[in-house]
Amino acid sequence: MEPGPPGDSGPAEPGPCVSGLGDTDPAASASWLSRAGAETRRGWPTVAAVLPAGGSGERMGVPTPKQFCPILERPLISYTLQALERVPWIKDIVVSVTGENMGTMNDIIQRYQHKHISLVEAGVTRHRSIFNGLKALADQSNAKLSKPEVVIIHDAVRPFVEEDVLLKVVTAAKEHGAAGAIRPLVSTVISPSANGCLDCSLDRDRYRASEMPQAFLFDVIYGAYQQCSEYDLEYGTECLQLALKYGHTKARLVEGSADLWKVTYKRDLYAAESIIKERTSKQIYIVMDRKDREEHIGVLLEEMLKNEVNNVKFTSGALCHVGRDLQPILSKQCYNFVCVNVMTSDFQETQELLNILKESNLSMLYPVVVISVHFHASESVPFGEKMENLMKIRECAKEAKKRNILLYGLLICYPQEEQKLQESLKQGVTIIDALVKERNFGLIGQLLVA
Amino acid sequence: MEPGPPGDSGPAEPGPCVSGLGDTDPAASASWLSRAGAETRRGWPTVAAVLPAGGSGERMGVPTPKQFCPILERPLISYTLQALERVPWIKDIVVSVTGENMGTMNDIIQRYQHKHISLVEAGVTRHRSIFNGLKALADQSNAKLSKPEVVIIHDAVRPFVEEDVLLKVVTAAKEHGAAGAIRPLVSTVISPSANGCLDCSLDRDRYRASEMPQAFLFDVIYGAYQQCSEYDLEYGTECLQLALKYGHTKARLVEGSADLWKVTYKRDLYAAESIIKERTSKQIYIVMDRKDREEHIGVLLEEMLKNEVNNVKFTSGALCHVGRDLQPILSKQCYNFVCVNVMTSDFQETQELLNILKESNLSMLYPVVVISVHFHASESVPFGEKMENLMKIRECAKEAKKRNILLYGLLICYPQEEQKLQESLKQGVTIIDALVKERNFGLIGQLLVA
Repeated sequence: MEPGPPGDSGPAEPGPCVSGLGDTDPAASASWLSRAGAETRRGWPTVAAVLPAGGSGERMGVPTPKQFCPILERPLISYTLQALERVPWIKDIVVSVTGENMGTMNDIIQRYQHKHISLVEAGVTRHRSIFNGLKALADQSNAKLSKPEVVIIHDAVRPFVEEDVLLKVVTAAKEHGAAGAIRPLVSTVISPSANGCLDCSLDRDRYRASEMPQAFLFDVIYGAYQQCSEYDLEYGTECLQLALKYGHTKARLVEGSADLWKVTYKRDLYAAESIIKERTSKQIYIVMDRKDREEHIGVLLEEMLKNEVNNVKFTSGALCHVGRDLQPILSKQCYNFVCVNVMTSDFQETQELLNILKESNLSMLYPVVVISVHFHASESVPFGEKMENLMKIRECAKEAKKRNILLYGLLICYPQEEQKLQESLKQGVTIIDALVKERNFGLIGQLLVA
Repeated sequence: MEPGPPGDSGPAEPGPCVSGLGDTDPAASASWLSRAGAETRRGWPTVAAVLPAGGSGERMGVPTPKQFCPILERPLISYTLQALERVPWIKDIVVSVTGENMGTMNDIIQRYQHKHISLVEAGVTRHRSIFNGLKALADQSNAKLSKPEVVIIHDAVRPFVEEDVLLKVVTAAKEHGAAGAIRPLVSTVISPSANGCLDCSLDRDRYRASEMPQAFLFDVIYGAYQQCSEYDLEYGTECLQLALKYGHTKARLVEGSADLWKVTYKRDLYAAESIIKERTSKQIYIVMDRKDREEHIGVLLEEMLKNEVNNVKFTSGALCHVGRDLQPILSKQCYNFVCVNVMTSDFQETQELLNILKESNLSMLYPVVVISVHFHASESVPFGEKMENLMKIRECAKEAKKRNILLYGLLICYPQEEQKLQESLKQGVTIIDALVKERNFGLIGQLLVA
């Protein structure tokens, strides 16, 4: 069994994951260890993290270093920082960035309200950047930072690190001195001869890919960096190897999940964006402007959404619930709202929802989708007139966009005939599903018709 | 210098790539070697390919084997087959599939009109599946297949293989007996000890990842498979290793591009879809219903598209040009059409374009985007009425969808004021860009407003 977390009341298995948009149940996302109390608990080490972020991103084939490439308009490194800072027992996060990117990095920290971050100047190689981070932690004249017992080393370009693997490497490092996440090899590894021919191929089962995060007793890895050669600092890539060679510490290897992969190529940015879109589309809050629950068009839509859209959790309530339940909504990581306007013909409800969301800060890290749903019964006003009335959504959407809220309109026809109504509703569900999954900035303010 | 391609008139360097939607200039995509003439050219070997596709996709975490997972509604393996069959000098493609997927595979071949494909039953391991493919090629009683001089081995889940790397491995195999594509390692490779600790880490610069495609003199690899042990067939992963061990042939290693990566995890499917979307959005044909080129709203839109949308090539012409130029359009791999209706207020032009496209088969492999653009001048009919008139696009879109054509409407307001007109046009460009890049099936038939 893995050593349990600190404190007597915590679960024996690693606590639930709270870093980023994990696959675990978000309702259970309160961690078992508060940051303030972490270091005082019996046996649990003080922990800091070092994040080398001095890379140039040449493999990406894009001019921006990959850690600063935007995903849904937010730089990749901000997702990684978010993943680390949501782990309450990581006290400090030291990021190594090049001098020219120091300003960019400060802007990111400010804009996305990252906490517990210290910046140090990156070196010209990865090892030098990590060493600079360790030096800052060891520097007794630095009042802001203190030397931790265990230090995590992670990559700025691995945004999906979860608390459970961090807990595993820290626990293993405390016991063994060093630990790192590993993954099975995807391709066979071969050794080329000098003339470009196959020399030998390695048995894939006997080797592993060394991934991040890794963790070390601070003195082990800091000592290793202090002793290692210029050649190591210049050409080495593996911290576990330094701990072995200079700290005589055999690292414990911990199986990591597939999500730990490193964003290296442009295709990895695409994959990261799709993963984030998938994760942010897992919950939808349906706001109803009717409090009674008898059969009406809004309820029919809600039922069809629940029946037709898979792998999405639906919650519903009146607008006053949203205002009241905001804390649960925030902690449930719900970034999608379908605002059903049955009673009111204009955007009053939607506007109030937008106001609540704007005040909540929910959209700071992820774009929030709001779909304002309206209905058109054939006997009432002409369809064209109804559409024209709803076109003012475009102005609302422009305003909302400034706060990272993506507002779309949806007009659902309400024919008398039962079968046609079902078709309209089904079409409405398809559109809602598409808007939530795509999170498309170019189509905000559009009135879609089902 | 690389050995030149066969034939005296061909270029000395490998010919332009025609496999799939490559990054090379599609205008130059005629290959230097026709399939019929390939084997008769002096010195050029006969070539076949074997594609093991018996995998279960367990790493993907989805029930469908990964080679059959849909990307833009077409199974992944179809993209790979397309990439191979567009190389004219590959005579036969033998695919190993499990008995239970034989029907699925036959459907795919029929639906996407794949040519030169033979199916054989997969074995329980990758090596056994490849061996079965080789046996079919060697089988003299099989009238459909003949034993090639060189055989390419590729993976069904590497859809982005280009002609140039195939040419390189075949050329190298002809000279050295065996050849394979390699890539730099992304992660450091380590060797764990029995107790789960680090034993040693490999020097990343001295090793490479062995990727696909690989190529062999047929007799070398077939002989190796005939001699190799049950253990090799059961647990081995590397064909180059078999050629070395049993054929005493040191494979030539060829640097491959990053696009050769293997679709392994769910995130790789996301990446593949994004890459295909990116590649299919690189060209837009603007269909104008006015033949004169004086300043009018359609021309203004065209100019703004060219100014604002980067990395996209625009072509424009009247509808009759589309009909006449269909062959060039097909060969230029243009999958996006913006149909600008200035003179006509209804969908006549768009409908004619749809008819031409339906007859062309252009949408068989990739969904084709058609955006029907209309304008609304403030002094004419009420806006709502205009919108209502255009709603019939929904019916057209349903029909078009059956042929894999994604039809959207775009109504651009045409205000008198110059600055507002510019804003409308710019908004129109944003919407066109979003529709072309997203290729969203859920939003077809929608009338978007700029």
